[in-house]
Amino acid sequence: MLHEVKVDKPNPAYAAMLQEQLGGANGELKAGLQYFSQSFRIQDPEIKDLFLDIAAEEFSHAEMVAQTINMLNGHEVSNTNDNIGQIESQVLSGLAPMLANGSGTPFTGNYVNVTGDITADILSDIAAEQRAKVVYEYLYRQIDDQGVRETIDFLLNREEAHNALFRQALNKVQKNKRSSNDDFGVTEDSRLYFDLSTPGKYFDNPFPTPPSFQEPSQKKEPQGQPV
Amino acid sequence: MLHEVKVDKPNPAYAAMLQEQLGGANGELKAGLQYFSQSFRIQDPEIKDLFLDIAAEEFSHAEMVAQTINMLNGHEVSNTNDNIGQIESQVLSGLAPMLANGSGTPFTGNYVNVTGDITADILSDIAAEQRAKVVYEYLYRQIDDQGVRETIDFLLNREEAHNALFRQALNKVQKNKRSSNDDFGVTEDSRLYFDLSTPGKYFDNPFPTPPSFQEPSQKKEPQGQPV
Amino acid sequence: MLHEVKVDKPNPAYAAMLQEQLGGANGELKAGLQYFSQSFRIQDPEIKDLFLDIAAEEFSHAEMVAQTINMLNGHEVSNTNDNIGQIESQVLSGLAPMLANGSGTPFTGNYVNVTGDITADILSDIAAEQRAKVVYEYLYRQIDDQGVRETIDFLLNREEAHNALFRQALNKVQKNKRSSNDDFGVTEDSRLYFDLSTPGKYFDNPFPTPPSFQEPSQKKEPQGQPV
Amino acid sequence: MLHEVKVDKPNPAYAAMLQEQLGGANGELKAGLQYFSQSFRIQDPEIKDLFLDIAAEEFSHAEMVAQTINMLNGHEVSNTNDNIGQIESQVLSGLAPMLANGSGTPFTGNYVNVTGDITADILSDIAAEQRAKVVYEYLYRQIDDQGVRETIDFLLNREEAHNALFRQALNKVQKNKRSSNDDFGVTEDSRLYFDLSTPGKYFDNPFPTPPSFQEPSQKKEPQGQPV
Amino acid sequence: MLHEVKVDKPNPAYAAMLQEQLGGANGELKAGLQYFSQSFRIQDPEIKDLFLDIAAEEFSHAEMVAQTINMLNGHEVSNTNDNIGQIESQVLSGLAPMLANGSGTPFTGNYVNVTGDITADILSDIAAEQRAKVVYEYLYRQIDDQGVRETIDFLLNREEAHNALFRQALNKVQKNKRSSNDDFGVTEDSRLYFDLSTPGKYFDNPFPTPPSFQEPSQKKEPQGQPV
Amino acid sequence: MLHEVKVDKPNPAYAAMLQEQLGGANGELKAGLQYFSQSFRIQDPEIKDLFLDIAAEEFSHAEMVAQTINMLNGHEVSNTNDNIGQIESQVLSGLAPMLANGSGTPFTGNYVNVTGDITADILSDIAAEQRAKVVYEYLYRQIDDQGVRETIDFLLNREEAHNALFRQALNKVQKNKRSSNDDFGVTEDSRLYFDLSTPGKYFDNPFPTPPSFQEPSQKKEPQGQPV
Repeated sequence: MLHEVKVDKPNPAYAAMLQEQLGGANGELKAGLQYFSQSFRIQDPEIKDLFLDIAAEEFSHAEMVAQTINMLNGHEVSNTNDNIGQIESQVLSGLAPMLANGSGTPFTGNYVNVTGDITADILSDIAAEQRAKVVYEYLYRQIDDQGVRETIDFLLNREEAHNALFRQALNKVQKNKRSSNDDFGVTEDSRLYFDLSTPGKYFDNPFPTPPSFQEPSQKKEPQGQPV
Repeated sequence: MLHEVKVDKPNPAYAAMLQEQLGGANGELKAGLQYFSQSFRIQDPEIKDLFLDIAAEEFSHAEMVAQTINMLNGHEVSNTNDNIGQIESQVLSGLAPMLANGSGTPFTGNYVNVTGDITADILSDIAAEQRAKVVYEYLYRQIDDQGVRETIDFLLNREEAHNALFRQALNKVQKNKRSSNDDFGVTEDSRLYFDLSTPGKYFDNPFPTPPSFQEPSQKKEPQGQPV
Repeated sequence: MLHEVKVDKPNPAYAAMLQEQLGGANGELKAGLQYFSQSFRIQDPEIKDLFLDIAAEEFSHAEMVAQTINMLNGHEVSNTNDNIGQIESQVLSGLAPMLANGSGTPFTGNYVNVTGDITADILSDIAAEQRAKVVYEYLYRQIDDQGVRETIDFLLNREEAHNALFRQALNKVQKNKRSSNDDFGVTEDSRLYFDLSTPGKYFDNPFPTPPSFQEPSQKKEPQGQPV
Repeated sequence: MLHEVKVDKPNPAYAAMLQEQLGGANGELKAGLQYFSQSFRIQDPEIKDLFLDIAAEEFSHAEMVAQTINMLNGHEVSNTNDNIGQIESQVLSGLAPMLANGSGTPFTGNYVNVTGDITADILSDIAAEQRAKVVYEYLYRQIDDQGVRETIDFLLNREEAHNALFRQALNKVQKNKRSSNDDFGVTEDSRLYFDLSTPGKYFDNPFPTPPSFQEPSQKKEPQGQPV
Repeated sequence: MLHEVKVDKPNPAYAAMLQEQLGGANGELKAGLQYFSQSFRIQDPEIKDLFLDIAAEEFSHAEMVAQTINMLNGHEVSNTNDNIGQIESQVLSGLAPMLANGSGTPFTGNYVNVTGDITADILSDIAAEQRAKVVYEYLYRQIDDQGVRETIDFLLNREEAHNALFRQALNKVQKNKRSSNDDFGVTEDSRLYFDLSTPGKYFDNPFPTPPSFQEPSQKKEPQGQPV
Repeated sequence: MLHEVKVDKPNPAYAAMLQEQLGGANGELKAGLQYFSQSFRIQDPEIKDLFLDIAAEEFSHAEMVAQTINMLNGHEVSNTNDNIGQIESQVLSGLAPMLANGSGTPFTGNYVNVTGDITADILSDIAAEQRAKVVYEYLYRQIDDQGVRETIDFLLNREEAHNALFRQALNKVQKNKRSSNDDFGVTEDSRLYFDLSTPGKYFDNPFPTPPSFQEPSQKKEPQGQPV
């Protein structure tokens, strides 16, 4: 584990909620498996290495989340009426962390987006990191436990780091001749706006260019320290 | 329907593959339901209208894809050995289009990403449009039928138009004080690179700034015609 | 939307329950997608038009239910112990309506029955409308909010209207020579009763005839007003 | 088993298709479990007994279908290119019948409709029996094996018998004061027709009355023999 | 039913938890369907008969569990805040037992392990019986109702009986020349220990022999009475 | 990766089948995640270390299987009629390995058995390893490619090694006072045999003792070399 985890006290109801980031749609397991699966079709060895670095870190995050859930679950199965969300930990897993989300829906390969196209995959990853950040923000607001808050704060900030790295990767492969960005926006149909709902039409017709992020490093702020 | 569809001749094997864009992970139904679901928490009325316009168009695309599948399925259930992928159309739906993907996995709400956060939602949509484009490219390569190819070409280009519009929307809401971009990259943990896989470390430590796309309209090319 | 919706006050616990009619087994999305999918194989243009009318209305109902859920969810994620059922709205969707049922199980294409046979499809639709009515009755009893009750009352009554229309459609296609009713009940095996459980045998051997509903319009009561 | 099964020769491709009626949406397992689950809330002891008789018979049918699949799968796992649909039997189950449909989607409790309302449940059952008949018709057309055809013919006719019995049961409980038929069609909203699609409006406004089937026994044909 | 069931009083929250053993991963339905499915490829007629005996008993247990849930659910749908886990019984099934687990995840064929290999199947069954026992232990601790406790106690002990019988069956087929035990542990690769985690290596290299249980009947205690 | 993988030539049809051991019910991902999840509740530090060693190795196996699938998928999406099983690689993932089984069903957390009870968990693991071996045997028989066969042979033998290690672990914790083996077989109900199927009763009443494996190391054969 990259970061020690601790909890102030058991809290099975919150453990259920935190399951979201172990086995849920934007959780750590999903993230690690997505980057792992995508890495197989990446040509550029430096990008591939980046994907495997981040995948390995996400699996480590999954371990941190699971360990936190495990401690929050405490030591006695119980059906007290402050349980919320999934109840499987109390009847099935014996308080062990589960591969399911906060409502008990099992983790599914459907969460993982892989296309074999470097541009589409990186855009999926940037979006996934942003969603993961948002879920951690929701979870942070619903707990006072300082140990849990420190762990969430660390994980949330790591998602931002990955987000920035994936954007650098996208800019690096922008000229890739075999990606879905190479032939972007070349026909008339791609430049129309269909106004199909009331009230009106607030956007001009698009002029599609390939997705490209502003360079994060344009900013002048000091760099973080290497690891 | 926004565009007439036709097929040169029935082709049940290809109909199975095309199911991917009706009931699959990057299909039209997923797209329409994603933008529809996201629209409920959008504050800005112009962005909300954009989402509902695109959602309505995606539902129309779903109808086009379904109608194409219906014609490709022909008129007789059969178990000839050139069937590939899902077989449900031959044994369950009586050749009607199905809410399932190319391998017969049922459409699931898991495909739909909604976070209630405008930045995360738009990034998810840009990624979804790029993935949808890629799937259409794969499908295009595997069919000679000119009618089907015209429909795919139209749909692929519309995904590019949506992609560009969503990027404009993201730039429009960039300063939103209640989105996940507002507090992006402020701690030390967000500026580290963990080198966890061999061979090495090819990327500098990140310096996270909020995701922001290059303005598509910087280009000087002529605008498409309004609708 | 066909009918304005309002709620007296936020009620996240009830919002979770109402998810049942957005993303659940008998919900509005299921209904709309079922009639939409079935419509592709319908030969009779009048019946096909009826299916598309009702499908369009169900999608509009889905919007009403989603908007109601959105208002009931209020404005702050919370883990108070009066949450019941699904918890995803608090940890994943940021209080936006979800494509899931009251316990958080994602919407699935498995809910949608399509056979390509006009008789089987209409019987499925009549049953679906009756089940939808029942779910609304259960939901109605568990809420005091007058705004919500008005919406449920409207939706429940619309399901009855659809139910009656589908029965008229079935009687209209009764003589269809290509449907599963055409060769109903012609062998000896279809006229046996196997008594396989205790206590006894309370029904005579069946004499199967094709399913056919009593004509709703036999009644003398005044007709409703056209729209 | 109520009826001996046999096959002329192994046919793994057809075995995959026949899985539809073991583990699919309208299969025998679904039917048996649906009637079993519904039986718990039935008040009328005669109706309850009927449900358990039919449930028991459906489980017996499941055994017949499974045994037929087992024989069709033969004795050697193989990846010859005439496999269609699901491939799990060749790589996972060792040629044993599986709890999955023809495309390999696992059986799910989502197939089972239970509402606790006698009218809605019986209407669901009539629809389910009609769909099961239709699937058997599709399967019958796609096989020449006489042994398999005899089994399908038997099963198809039994679904018709159940269909007729469920209709008798519905008519028997028509006056039930605690069912969803008791308050059917009493408000203005239930008597409107919303014309929401082109081309037009071909149906009059409905006048909803409770669903009620024409009495099957009105016909004068001779009764089958008791069992 | 093999054993009468009763409950002291309704308890919908506990009914939700008990769903785990009706429609959950280690529940009675899973057990019955697993042994039923496995029986088709069993060669030894005595073992096959044993599997069908136990399968029949598990279906009977499923009925006992379902009847207990039905009584615990009481007579009025309600959204009181002591509901925990799944909420579908209150909004969908009208208080009837459901084919879902304690959190509302539908029963799935994925729970059922079938390989067509007698050794692997029996080992799966022994593990399944042990897990079922554990779930019953968790459920037992969370209820004071004496009626429910008696039923759980009976079911838990029956799982132990099945466990022992399956172990006898495994020892009986140990010499089976067509099972996965026949060629167990013959290569060098099967005798290595890879030490891949900190802290250390606490186990010697394995020397694989086929799985084989100590004979339960070595003990001298008196035998139970026949049935 | 612990072992280099290679393939003689691309074979997309076989790649689909091999998906079974990446994303299927007895695949490497399931194994790794199962032991990882179980490890959190293990008290004995030596057993816990063993679980993490084997989990790490299974994740490495998953990488080997994924890399093999990746090479077998070749370089061009195609819909030739020798495709069997899942078709998603050709339409969705762009020939990248997928988190799904051979028929395209997505990986699910339902495959993972965790109970928090050391005895039940180890028995589940022994059964899982035996099933994994069986699947590899089926896959081995259906391919001539020598590169693939070498990889399968290695993986199959490693499952046997794990199997033996888990049995040693079970014998080590046999006296554990907090496991489900501690109170095994103490009531009369656990010593009955219910004869519920024809033809007869071939097994004596059981006398349940806790599951316990014959010591693998009783054999006199030479030990493998340490790593």
